[in-house]
Amino acid sequence: MKILVINAGSSSLKYQLYDMTDESVMAKGLVERIGMDSSILTHKPTGKEEVTEVSDILEHTTAIRKVLDKLTDKVHGVLESIDEIDAVGHRVVHGGEAFKSSALITGEVKSEIRRLFDLAPLHNPPSMMGITAAEANLPNVPHTVVFDTAFHQTMPEKAYLYAIPKVLYKKHKVRRYGFHGTSHAYVSKAAAEFLNRPIEDLKIITCHIGNGASLTAVKDGVSVDTSMGMTPLEGLIMGTRSGDLDPAIVPFVMNKEELTINEVNSMLNKHSGLLAISGASSDMRDITDGMAAGEPNATLAFEMYEYRLRKYIGSYAAAMNGVDVIVFTAGVGENSAVVREKVCENLTYLGVEIDKALNQVRSGDPRRISTPNSKVEVLVVPTNEELVIARDTLRIVNEMK
Amino acid sequence: MKILVINAGSSSLKYQLYDMTDESVMAKGLVERIGMDSSILTHKPTGKEEVTEVSDILEHTTAIRKVLDKLTDKVHGVLESIDEIDAVGHRVVHGGEAFKSSALITGEVKSEIRRLFDLAPLHNPPSMMGITAAEANLPNVPHTVVFDTAFHQTMPEKAYLYAIPKVLYKKHKVRRYGFHGTSHAYVSKAAAEFLNRPIEDLKIITCHIGNGASLTAVKDGVSVDTSMGMTPLEGLIMGTRSGDLDPAIVPFVMNKEELTINEVNSMLNKHSGLLAISGASSDMRDITDGMAAGEPNATLAFEMYEYRLRKYIGSYAAAMNGVDVIVFTAGVGENSAVVREKVCENLTYLGVEIDKALNQVRSGDPRRISTPNSKVEVLVVPTNEELVIARDTLRIVNEMK
Repeated sequence: MKILVINAGSSSLKYQLYDMTDESVMAKGLVERIGMDSSILTHKPTGKEEVTEVSDILEHTTAIRKVLDKLTDKVHGVLESIDEIDAVGHRVVHGGEAFKSSALITGEVKSEIRRLFDLAPLHNPPSMMGITAAEANLPNVPHTVVFDTAFHQTMPEKAYLYAIPKVLYKKHKVRRYGFHGTSHAYVSKAAAEFLNRPIEDLKIITCHIGNGASLTAVKDGVSVDTSMGMTPLEGLIMGTRSGDLDPAIVPFVMNKEELTINEVNSMLNKHSGLLAISGASSDMRDITDGMAAGEPNATLAFEMYEYRLRKYIGSYAAAMNGVDVIVFTAGVGENSAVVREKVCENLTYLGVEIDKALNQVRSGDPRRISTPNSKVEVLVVPTNEELVIARDTLRIVNEMK
Repeated sequence: MKILVINAGSSSLKYQLYDMTDESVMAKGLVERIGMDSSILTHKPTGKEEVTEVSDILEHTTAIRKVLDKLTDKVHGVLESIDEIDAVGHRVVHGGEAFKSSALITGEVKSEIRRLFDLAPLHNPPSMMGITAAEANLPNVPHTVVFDTAFHQTMPEKAYLYAIPKVLYKKHKVRRYGFHGTSHAYVSKAAAEFLNRPIEDLKIITCHIGNGASLTAVKDGVSVDTSMGMTPLEGLIMGTRSGDLDPAIVPFVMNKEELTINEVNSMLNKHSGLLAISGASSDMRDITDGMAAGEPNATLAFEMYEYRLRKYIGSYAAAMNGVDVIVFTAGVGENSAVVREKVCENLTYLGVEIDKALNQVRSGDPRRISTPNSKVEVLVVPTNEELVIARDTLRIVNEMK
């Protein structure tokens, strides 16, 4: 079975085509600048040369048509015909409380995703554009949806409720949802498999740290707490997001600087985090380069980032009364040896001990970076959200039969 | 030397008179409903009967004059004349970055406290009323000021800065200050003395949990992190305060419910916390009673409170790379055996082990509740913020000589 995985943003669309007989990637790519001048389509067929094409792509339906053209292109293609695509899996950020797992897309499912626009105004509308566009181009195959929030629907009330008037939960669904669920689910399972231990016996802390970043406490194989909240703003310091702060700062700053609601949201989501502290970059590679060069603001940004991350690990160890495995994943987690080293250096009270040489190894495979003496297994597990979407789609399609 | 300690709120004034030769309390009391009908003065002279007086007290100068009348009263008094009072120590909540320790009150100090009205609009103005009123009544003795924030001025940048645009720190002094500093300082020192160990060798987590509540990580005798932030809203779930939440919830709720800045502040500070979750009470005694009676909302409130507190302990263990001592203090910390038990029950991964019988003992003295096998000393240390103010005042007055 061949499955196309689609991840649509407001002006971008990522895709990946899987052959599920061996879970191999046949092709992947990205359309950027949708709706702007000179949209860019980058197509990477496996075993063939990458191709880039610039044209004006005004909306998502055209974007998907161009992608399908490339997938079936005589030179750059990997398919004879689009009829070979058996199903399409879509990523949607916010599934609210309605979706506890991935789902076949139906009219009702689409209505529910639309009802969630309110909670995820930046993320769900473009996902819906991607779904509509893909259905228009591929009307005869099942489409499924995989939610970033679904894995966290197992959290207990004490972890997902905020200590604010209950009417806000009842009326507006204000609660912790958590995000990056496909990644946390994937790497926690992969960690248990790597260790050859049943996930039901493990207390795992998964650190998905990329440009967005969140931690999850995974106990008995399910999410029991996670650092992102009602929105992806809460928790860790991220590239451009503040993460946690005194909630009273929000109205204080709105008052002092006469900011509107949109402006304060924009400030906290787009102009904060590593970017604000370093004054230079939201990218951890630039931050660690700056730190190596002795730049004080980069050093401060790194220290704040590491400190917040380490405190969350400590917090989740307390949440689960212990931790057996710490997993690092995503851009920073997979590639920044110095972030992993500095975090672990001050977790010796948990019995964490990492092997500095192993920590420097780069690889696309899951690997252990802790020593044999370490009381906590510390792993690097490359995440693969697209594969989770493809697998869930396969499962749903098989269940339909 | 006799020192009068004053803690002024907007409509209340607490006082305590110390004989510093033996740090004994000669008298203490409270004026309530200042500026309202039927103000109430409750005066407790040590070794004599408590007396309550109802009258209309319209402002703080009259309140202090009435207090001085009681202190020198033929029947209820403990002094021959107010000339016996050698100095007055005042509590002020917010000392900003200007005050790293207690200070003799001068014109410049008063100006600085006024400049901080902006950061602590609810707390510093009434403190200033108390100072002005006390100076008017006792113009010939030194007055000193002790700040709730001063102990936390040792925090490193990575702990006190938020990951938001730097201009907010430079222009509006938006940073973490922390509060309850006199209490955290007092109980951490008292814990080291109780254990007969140098405080410089200890990693201590002090849990000041009363109606307001905060934790502090005390390393080498100084505050390295604390859970309250720019304001006393951040951190733990409190009686009526939410503590931490996704900062994006603030603008979201303002928008949905059309709340003003004052209204959202009021909601988060006065109508949240235990009160909101339980729907019944902000008082931990009512919550634990409700839990014992099987009331689900009280049980949920307790669980959320305990869970947040425990996660913060875990977080500060990670912040210091370990913890030697956990100290419980203030109303809930000193009196709620069930809060202490439930928190410690899930900290066995740190080697915490409490003695359930010792945990049930009630006493006004510092005491150990951990077992001899516990890897972490767990103590209950009754706090005494007034005594810290009296001691600091004595020290400052002695330094003047």
